[in-house]
Amino acid sequence: MSSITPIGIVRTPFKEKFGIPKQPHLANEVQATIEIATAICAPESFEQLEGFNFIWLLGCFHLAESKSTKVRPPKLGGNEKVGVFATRSPFRPNPLSLSLVKLISIHHDEASKKMILTISGIDLVNETPVFDIKPYIPSHDTPWEPVKTGWVEDSSDKTYEVIWSDEAKSKVKELEVTTDQQKMINSILKIDPRPAYHNSHKSYFIVLDQFDIEFTVQNHQVIILNIKNSTR
Amino acid sequence: MSSITPIGIVRTPFKEKFGIPKQPHLANEVQATIEIATAICAPESFEQLEGFNFIWLLGCFHLAESKSTKVRPPKLGGNEKVGVFATRSPFRPNPLSLSLVKLISIHHDEASKKMILTISGIDLVNETPVFDIKPYIPSHDTPWEPVKTGWVEDSSDKTYEVIWSDEAKSKVKELEVTTDQQKMINSILKIDPRPAYHNSHKSYFIVLDQFDIEFTVQNHQVIILNIKNSTR
Repeated sequence: MSSITPIGIVRTPFKEKFGIPKQPHLANEVQATIEIATAICAPESFEQLEGFNFIWLLGCFHLAESKSTKVRPPKLGGNEKVGVFATRSPFRPNPLSLSLVKLISIHHDEASKKMILTISGIDLVNETPVFDIKPYIPSHDTPWEPVKTGWVEDSSDKTYEVIWSDEAKSKVKELEVTTDQQKMINSILKIDPRPAYHNSHKSYFIVLDQFDIEFTVQNHQVIILNIKNSTR
Repeated sequence: MSSITPIGIVRTPFKEKFGIPKQPHLANEVQATIEIATAICAPESFEQLEGFNFIWLLGCFHLAESKSTKVRPPKLGGNEKVGVFATRSPFRPNPLSLSLVKLISIHHDEASKKMILTISGIDLVNETPVFDIKPYIPSHDTPWEPVKTGWVEDSSDKTYEVIWSDEAKSKVKELEVTTDQQKMINSILKIDPRPAYHNSHKSYFIVLDQFDIEFTVQNHQVIILNIKNSTR
């Protein structure tokens, strides 16, 4: 049996598990990088990968510790259980993640001796270890009959309008939050990152890049209450 | 870091690497089973998986030993090299396979205390270790922009007419080759399993289930010359 060893790491704005999109394509403005040490994988291993625009990222759910036979998917409101193999839950017998991401660019960083792959559409926490990268090839990766998705209601989830409060707007100037960072925050909050079983009007905190963001949800609007430099 | 341990094994008709389809969907009549010991994964781990008809099978390329930075894909005639991450080659830094397969049925075998998943569209050698099973969910697994596939010419490959010689036909009766086995043999041979860089008219041998099959390719027809009980 060959052994499995991480070849690199994913750098994402998601510093904590809370807020990571369950539907990566809905937050596809969020960019991330895959960093691979060239001591492990020579730059020529990546030759002609730049001709593909979608790749599979196989990683390790390194923060998932509990291993149950059944899990409570957010899609079912957090109360019903289904078998772990009928889900994409991180809490599974082997902590292998599988993510379809968009490949934006590849370059070799001379200083760090790393291959840097810029990607978007990411659904992984920062510092996720990477095991493998494979190109998306339609003849391998497309079902050849109409798809059935069982308990998953697979319509695209509705998105919310995101409103920045006056307090938050003033902090944007003070903290010099860039336009790209504002877009990224909007794209995460518009898909309502709250756990499905919470539905109150209280405020929530999400850590994105270096910011702690406080928000609440009212009448199908996400309202950003405050934004601060994160201490986490 | 969590460890990765096989949870089961795939039983396929492909006893050897030669002849395994590179385009699984073209040989989707070929059935296989995934056997998972219930001591490792309780039957309830599979609850509601039967509602899905396509699953990802993450396995281990256990026969792949050499690890090159570049490989020679059959699609390029076997002479040109591309980086291993731009391919689905089994010879990669971590021997992780990723296969989309059709899920036909699931049952718990009381005698062997195993979960048996019957699948089709398989591209793995017999006894491939299994690490994980995940449902195919379009919102996770469908590119959100038109796909680019670089060096891969991703049109479906042409298929060949399969002819059984008189010698082979008489062996079918003698060896009691079932109709399903004949269909399976046809579906593998019609996609011409020869390596791309061979194109002579000599005969080739392929092991499928318990049979050794001798064939040749002439004028876009695959001719089955003989079929014997395999000693392998």
